[in-house]
Amino acid sequence: MTKDRLESVYRDYIACLNGRDLSGLERYVDEGATHNGRPLGVSGYREMLERDFADIPDLRFNIELLVVDPPYVASRLHFQCTPRADFMNLHVGGIEVSFAENVFYEFMEAKISRVWSVIDKAAIEAQLMSRHGANRHC
Amino acid sequence: MTKDRLESVYRDYIACLNGRDLSGLERYVDEGATHNGRPLGVSGYREMLERDFADIPDLRFNIELLVVDPPYVASRLHFQCTPRADFMNLHVGGIEVSFAENVFYEFMEAKISRVWSVIDKAAIEAQLMSRHGANRHC
Repeated sequence: MTKDRLESVYRDYIACLNGRDLSGLERYVDEGATHNGRPLGVSGYREMLERDFADIPDLRFNIELLVVDPPYVASRLHFQCTPRADFMNLHVGGIEVSFAENVFYEFMEAKISRVWSVIDKAAIEAQLMSRHGANRHC
Repeated sequence: MTKDRLESVYRDYIACLNGRDLSGLERYVDEGATHNGRPLGVSGYREMLERDFADIPDLRFNIELLVVDPPYVASRLHFQCTPRADFMNLHVGGIEVSFAENVFYEFMEAKISRVWSVIDKAAIEAQLMSRHGANRHC
């Protein structure tokens, strides 16, 4: 797949997530997809996102930086959102936080087959610290 | 710069770090370099790495995945190392941990000008939890 085509597929995938069109996820995710080493497939991937949207009602994926080299996409995503309760074992409940996710995808044909994601937990902790003036989240 | 050339420069930069040749850092880092939004320049960048090597004597950078699209490089780095004391506000002291860093670089000419790094803190916490069987690090 060309670089331009892969970038286009990836942007469509992010639009699919932001449109909450999880029934359309199979267009972008391979049956054998893994996420940080966990085999999820399409159904497990959908369940993961359903949980994310339930836990974070205002979740929205914003592409900040995109590096494409087929079959790989590396994306820096920016989030500004309000988790309902705990998030990454932090007591975020009801507080708006902003953070990045640096994530790599390997595509097979036009579908995501492997994902390696890291979320900037330290940035969220720093926001909670400055808000509460203490290590409330521990 | 071509994709192959940029990849070669990046691999040389990592070899420079693993060779602890911090005097050679100016070959790879721009005077105006920023790291996660902080202006560091060459001297600040060197000080950051000197601290890292002092805090983690067996620190070694291993490239697990590389996505290159000039002027950007996205790299998933793998670490297996033993921080002397606290690391990322976790009581790691003397315990070998393994974790990833997903990091993006913007190059200007042949030098790193901007870095956006996220370290997988949650993975380190999980290792400490399973080792201690309790939330000792909080």
